[in-house]
Amino acid sequence: MMDDRERLTLDEVHELVASVLTRHGLAPAHVEACADVMTAGERDGGGSHGIFRLLMCMNSIRAGKVSLDAEPVVEDAAQGIVRVDAGGAFAPLAFRRGLPALVQKAREVGLAAMAVNDCCHFAALFPEVEAIAREGLVGFAFTPSHAWVAPAGGSRPLLGTNPIAFGWPRPAGDPFVFDFATSASARGELELHRREDRPTPPGWGVDASGTPTTDAAEILEGAMLPFGGHKGSALSLMVELIAGPLIGDLTSVDSIAYDAGAKGAPLGGELLLAIDPSRMLGDGAPKHLARAEAIFEGVVSQGARLPSLRRYEARRKSEAEGVLIPRKLLDEVRAMLV
Amino acid sequence: MMDDRERLTLDEVHELVASVLTRHGLAPAHVEACADVMTAGERDGGGSHGIFRLLMCMNSIRAGKVSLDAEPVVEDAAQGIVRVDAGGAFAPLAFRRGLPALVQKAREVGLAAMAVNDCCHFAALFPEVEAIAREGLVGFAFTPSHAWVAPAGGSRPLLGTNPIAFGWPRPAGDPFVFDFATSASARGELELHRREDRPTPPGWGVDASGTPTTDAAEILEGAMLPFGGHKGSALSLMVELIAGPLIGDLTSVDSIAYDAGAKGAPLGGELLLAIDPSRMLGDGAPKHLARAEAIFEGVVSQGARLPSLRRYEARRKSEAEGVLIPRKLLDEVRAMLV
Repeated sequence: MMDDRERLTLDEVHELVASVLTRHGLAPAHVEACADVMTAGERDGGGSHGIFRLLMCMNSIRAGKVSLDAEPVVEDAAQGIVRVDAGGAFAPLAFRRGLPALVQKAREVGLAAMAVNDCCHFAALFPEVEAIAREGLVGFAFTPSHAWVAPAGGSRPLLGTNPIAFGWPRPAGDPFVFDFATSASARGELELHRREDRPTPPGWGVDASGTPTTDAAEILEGAMLPFGGHKGSALSLMVELIAGPLIGDLTSVDSIAYDAGAKGAPLGGELLLAIDPSRMLGDGAPKHLARAEAIFEGVVSQGARLPSLRRYEARRKSEAEGVLIPRKLLDEVRAMLV
Repeated sequence: MMDDRERLTLDEVHELVASVLTRHGLAPAHVEACADVMTAGERDGGGSHGIFRLLMCMNSIRAGKVSLDAEPVVEDAAQGIVRVDAGGAFAPLAFRRGLPALVQKAREVGLAAMAVNDCCHFAALFPEVEAIAREGLVGFAFTPSHAWVAPAGGSRPLLGTNPIAFGWPRPAGDPFVFDFATSASARGELELHRREDRPTPPGWGVDASGTPTTDAAEILEGAMLPFGGHKGSALSLMVELIAGPLIGDLTSVDSIAYDAGAKGAPLGGELLLAIDPSRMLGDGAPKHLARAEAIFEGVVSQGARLPSLRRYEARRKSEAEGVLIPRKLLDEVRAMLV
């Protein structure tokens, strides 16, 4: 069988994404930040967080649902709180502009929060918590999305896929990072099952009457479900609250109403937290960070998977060899250049 | 069938617990704080977090694994961080002594963290996040326990039941609160299945070879599992990190080693976070807290369960009618008075 994928270097991925976004009027600073994030997604394993996300971004741009050039406005809201008003533009530039204040406040006060408001969020959260962890801080990130998910025991979409991400600085090497949707599946995985007319694993969703089903088309008419039953549902509610009303921004219900069928990226806010181990532990910080390594060793020594290891393996491979992109996707993206 | 339970008022529950703890030498301030927490557990639905927990506390006391009279030492570690050294005593008094500083710091800085160190933690976390939410703050709590749980894909105990709790202030009425173990089941539920020789639901654990089993005795020889597969496992690792090394305290592996078979309460630390919506939102806080109510309404209006509602229903019933305690448990507890 012919491999219908094409190999690109990461520079070529970046260049392609940047060209498409520039061609469609995105301001240079946003182009750079968005292309960095999509290239990082492709580099770390691709799938739905790489070049593929350009389709969702282009839906937002074409429907006029995203500002092409808003300059993020950074506001010092309290000693421990920085707020960034993204002005309805894509999120990556707003995060980038707010990060130095988040880091500085966490080092001064011991911990800090950053609310990114009115942003169009198309990416995974790992780049954000990884950036925080690379500053030597413990990082958390939360964001709602579009209302696609019913609470456990329910049948109607209320919650987003509401991801939670966490980053932990490791003295030597790459931070420990995880980043997952609190829904049982990603939205993209569900859509893939529908396109291929494959049954989903059990637990992904319910039909419009609230009955569990493995028919992806029925779930798309009904509702996705949280992972892990009522516990995952509670976490999803938490994300909805702390990255919605707590920061004065949209809920997943608000976001999908704003989208109005454009299939664009969710609009709303993101909450980031950073804690400085050095302020918590003083001189004891290096000793205790070293103790954390025994926990990681306890995971890998029994053959269990340590979150983020696969990501870093994929990264090293991509940096050395480039990435393989489905030709069909590349054709679709290149057509956006003309 | 005769109901082999006895009805006690909440005052009688408190009095009984306090008498037992006093009889065994616990200092008065600790007696009061511990009895409050166990009475609250019994009041809100009983089970393993009520009077039953006295058995675990007594194991700690009899084995000399807990200080009977250490005064908590509150330290102002940073503008946003308060630390409380519990001195090896039970946790409730340390939390109580640190709470005012946590609240004050959150109001000043926008958010704050409290590390409770070297405490013997026998209770659910909901009283703590509920207390934070009743101050108008958003609260989070995390603590490791004893190493009973394998990471997803593993076979050896490494993690604790590692609960996560969250509290959200509601403008009218009781806070929204949840509190759950990141293990698939509670330790107590598993022990109950073994005593009654009943198969567990699938997913609770693996035998010593790492093979999934529904035999509770085999799981107790092997390992419990996290809820929700690799996502729950990641969260459990997070709890282990942020309420262990990040605050310079024991991991679940350290705690069970310290216990050395005494079947006492876990020893270690607890991390609490509090965020002030008023510092995040300024004058907009009431408006946005009111918006959160629409999310809760979206849960209950579709017949799904809103976490904490059952707890508050049980509470009102207990306050009006008292609680029913198994006579066998009461006999065991009253025998500790002589």
